[in-house]
Amino acid sequence: MNGAESLVRTLIDSDIDLCVTNPGTSEMHFVAALDKVPGMRCVLGLFEGVVTGTADGFYRMADRPAATLLHLGPGLANGLANLHNAKKAGSGIVNIVGEHATFHLAHDAPLTADVEGVARPMSHWIKTSATAKDVAADGALAVEAARLAPGQIATLVLPADTAWNEADGPQRARAVAPRTAVTPQAVRAAAEALRQPGPKALLLGGAAVREEALIWAGRIAAKTGCTLLGEFNSPRTQRGAGRVAIQRVPYVVDSALALLKDLRRVVLVAAKPPVGFFAYPGKPSLLAPPLCRFSTLAEVQEDVTAALEALADELGARDQAPAQVAELAPPALPEGALTLDGVAAVLAASMPQDAIVVDEAVSSGRGLAGPTRDTQPHDWLTSMGGAIGYGLPVAIGAALACPSRKVIALEGDGSAMYTLQALWTMARESLDVTIVVFANRAYQILRGEFANVGAGAPGQRATDMLTLDRPALDWRALARGHGVESGQAVDLAGFAKELRRALACEGPYLIELLV
Amino acid sequence: MNGAESLVRTLIDSDIDLCVTNPGTSEMHFVAALDKVPGMRCVLGLFEGVVTGTADGFYRMADRPAATLLHLGPGLANGLANLHNAKKAGSGIVNIVGEHATFHLAHDAPLTADVEGVARPMSHWIKTSATAKDVAADGALAVEAARLAPGQIATLVLPADTAWNEADGPQRARAVAPRTAVTPQAVRAAAEALRQPGPKALLLGGAAVREEALIWAGRIAAKTGCTLLGEFNSPRTQRGAGRVAIQRVPYVVDSALALLKDLRRVVLVAAKPPVGFFAYPGKPSLLAPPLCRFSTLAEVQEDVTAALEALADELGARDQAPAQVAELAPPALPEGALTLDGVAAVLAASMPQDAIVVDEAVSSGRGLAGPTRDTQPHDWLTSMGGAIGYGLPVAIGAALACPSRKVIALEGDGSAMYTLQALWTMARESLDVTIVVFANRAYQILRGEFANVGAGAPGQRATDMLTLDRPALDWRALARGHGVESGQAVDLAGFAKELRRALACEGPYLIELLV
Repeated sequence: MNGAESLVRTLIDSDIDLCVTNPGTSEMHFVAALDKVPGMRCVLGLFEGVVTGTADGFYRMADRPAATLLHLGPGLANGLANLHNAKKAGSGIVNIVGEHATFHLAHDAPLTADVEGVARPMSHWIKTSATAKDVAADGALAVEAARLAPGQIATLVLPADTAWNEADGPQRARAVAPRTAVTPQAVRAAAEALRQPGPKALLLGGAAVREEALIWAGRIAAKTGCTLLGEFNSPRTQRGAGRVAIQRVPYVVDSALALLKDLRRVVLVAAKPPVGFFAYPGKPSLLAPPLCRFSTLAEVQEDVTAALEALADELGARDQAPAQVAELAPPALPEGALTLDGVAAVLAASMPQDAIVVDEAVSSGRGLAGPTRDTQPHDWLTSMGGAIGYGLPVAIGAALACPSRKVIALEGDGSAMYTLQALWTMARESLDVTIVVFANRAYQILRGEFANVGAGAPGQRATDMLTLDRPALDWRALARGHGVESGQAVDLAGFAKELRRALACEGPYLIELLV
Repeated sequence: MNGAESLVRTLIDSDIDLCVTNPGTSEMHFVAALDKVPGMRCVLGLFEGVVTGTADGFYRMADRPAATLLHLGPGLANGLANLHNAKKAGSGIVNIVGEHATFHLAHDAPLTADVEGVARPMSHWIKTSATAKDVAADGALAVEAARLAPGQIATLVLPADTAWNEADGPQRARAVAPRTAVTPQAVRAAAEALRQPGPKALLLGGAAVREEALIWAGRIAAKTGCTLLGEFNSPRTQRGAGRVAIQRVPYVVDSALALLKDLRRVVLVAAKPPVGFFAYPGKPSLLAPPLCRFSTLAEVQEDVTAALEALADELGARDQAPAQVAELAPPALPEGALTLDGVAAVLAASMPQDAIVVDEAVSSGRGLAGPTRDTQPHDWLTSMGGAIGYGLPVAIGAALACPSRKVIALEGDGSAMYTLQALWTMARESLDVTIVVFANRAYQILRGEFANVGAGAPGQRATDMLTLDRPALDWRALARGHGVESGQAVDLAGFAKELRRALACEGPYLIELLV
């Protein structure tokens, strides 16, 4: 078998069964091998940001890596922004990046670029296979690197001749190592912090906002009276009825400062001391008060659930009823104008059990998480890296990982435009994704940020750079262009009706909300 | 004034009058400064690949750089593929990339990335401003770097506090240095090569395929009997009636080998020895025969026109009538099915004087250049880096540089999808761009490449990765979604009618060709 086939077999033998692709000439042998070897689902993206974001979403929901197939340096470059997001989310991905044949590189053909250089800022692990016989072993190493907790970006560069030359058989990645346990000292220090008088909190991130970990956190809160905080963003928060609810640290610096101002002790669980998303003139970067002391129970790659259980034991909280458990109390369906509170209430009232919400509604989205607390249990995914264009691709990955669950992608119109090609993949794969586009026809968040950074009031030229009008984007036409059904809502009753229709239908459905 | 204003004034004082933007929070002071200081045209792109490609197209047609405004590492990353293309095209661009405030970087906020690392593979010049007072001088250096012949990618990273803190006044970039002259030895060696018996050629690239340089090349060909070849791709070839016509070295390796097989002497003028776009098993990377000897008259950054003039003088060809001058003999409008020859004939018959053709039709496009030789004089732009998604953005830049000329973008459906957000910018800026989409519903080139690399016949899974059907993209809907008028043609008469309508209208118009 050739190198490409040895790699495909290595991936499949290492439990990689999804390959998201945007191939070119130098990847044709890999495509041929995908064809020949059964066991790999292949999903085509029409832009590489779709490809890498899909792999991110898949990892968040499946807890195991997918592979991507990308074409040379520029193809990888197009996927970098969503690799940045995946890297920050701790999502494991195996990138297979084609490269010119080794003998062709010296001639500086048009597509020649420094592939490893392109990969470096967004990869934890990079290797270029030297010969066809190395490819299988390199592939196994890439899978092992991608699986390393919490998940890593592994980029394997595959020169065309290492794909087409004769290789040995496949290899298999070593089994996933269990997450490392935290030290007893870390547990005792955290317990000591939570036994102190005064305002204190557990700040949860990473795997600590999954259901089981949250139950332990809820018991600890019941015992110690600490607040349960979550980082503003998380790869996957499990929430809704029956789950322990946490409060996100707000995006807006002044709101975050106000929420945290009295805290004296914070125990970090797969989280970092809160920091502003951006810096602003005259405002601090660190959001907790200077007097606040942090202790780390668990780093993001450690076994956070066991750490919380151990902390609960240390505090004698094992038998406590967890605090802050949300109940199933969805609001009645509201009517009237499309206010954000109203949209959130429609969402809360309509959300089916086990929905997966991918939140990239940016300025509109900040108000949506709170009101959906007391609804059916669901997962809520946000961007960990802040690079716009993560939402639609992550929704694809979530739908591929969980075909029996409904995915709801909440998108700003500005953000949806970065990777709108994702709509086509949703249509081709008949994915159950409801896309809600908040069509405010502006980079609304930037209109706020313009003032926040002290730049005054925008004039005409600046306003033009912050608005998406002239012409207005027609989201129904964009959906149709990609083969996706759509509807539009101008009020809450219309939104409720469209949402019902979208959730009932098989395959993707886009709702344009004229907010 | 603050650092941002000192930079905007520096750019304007250095003859930069176009800024293509996709800003975020960290760039708001720069946006505010654009607002405050007159003299800069600001054009918004809804995706960063549109932004960088626009700057590439502008440089090709205006012969001076535009600035881009990009948001942090991920925003720059989204623009990299078209920076790769611009770098290979020798287009000068000044990238202004926002960065977190210097004091914020240590806290690893979500968008924190190695911005310089992202920039490095696609930049000739990179600098991060240290303080607000450095920004003006750094900006002037960036402009000088971008202008360095033939044009370079200069990336200036601007931490937010260097934009908002107090700065001194603007600076001005030093005047553009004239291109360096080639040595008399190079001229004599080239003349010596062309005086040899046997098949010989001038191989032209870069600025050597502009009108004036081509006339000298035509005189040399008339005198020496050498063939006039052009590299397969060029940033801007001036062609059509009254201009000296050249033959492109074909993309397909076997065709190129056949064309070049008898050559014994090749004089390179801003060109490199021909090399395959990709490598293929058992085929050579270098396309000229081993016996062929190369001599370099001029490097891409040198004064190629003067070099050709000097070579003509050395050969006594100054008064020769140039060989291979195309005449105005457009074909009659053909009718019938949408064959590529027919499409080319319609194009040749319909092209207005001084049209700018941006060719990213990939598999369909290769047949279009030949038949349009004997038509109205025009410029023909191709991708120098081979990264897909260059065409629509470059068309924007060409239209911004040449508002009185018609731009015709020839796009494969696969390639148009990479940066389709460009359509919106065309609509917003009312740019006279006719977009012809060859909707073959496949990565047609890859279907050929699959066989070319010896991967056999694609099975179902591979075919799925090479086709854009299920669902078919609806290009009229995609155009409408972005605010662009459109039409569709299923035969040559329909194409001719649509092309007439498109060229007559003000603003963009998209024609979906169902080939």
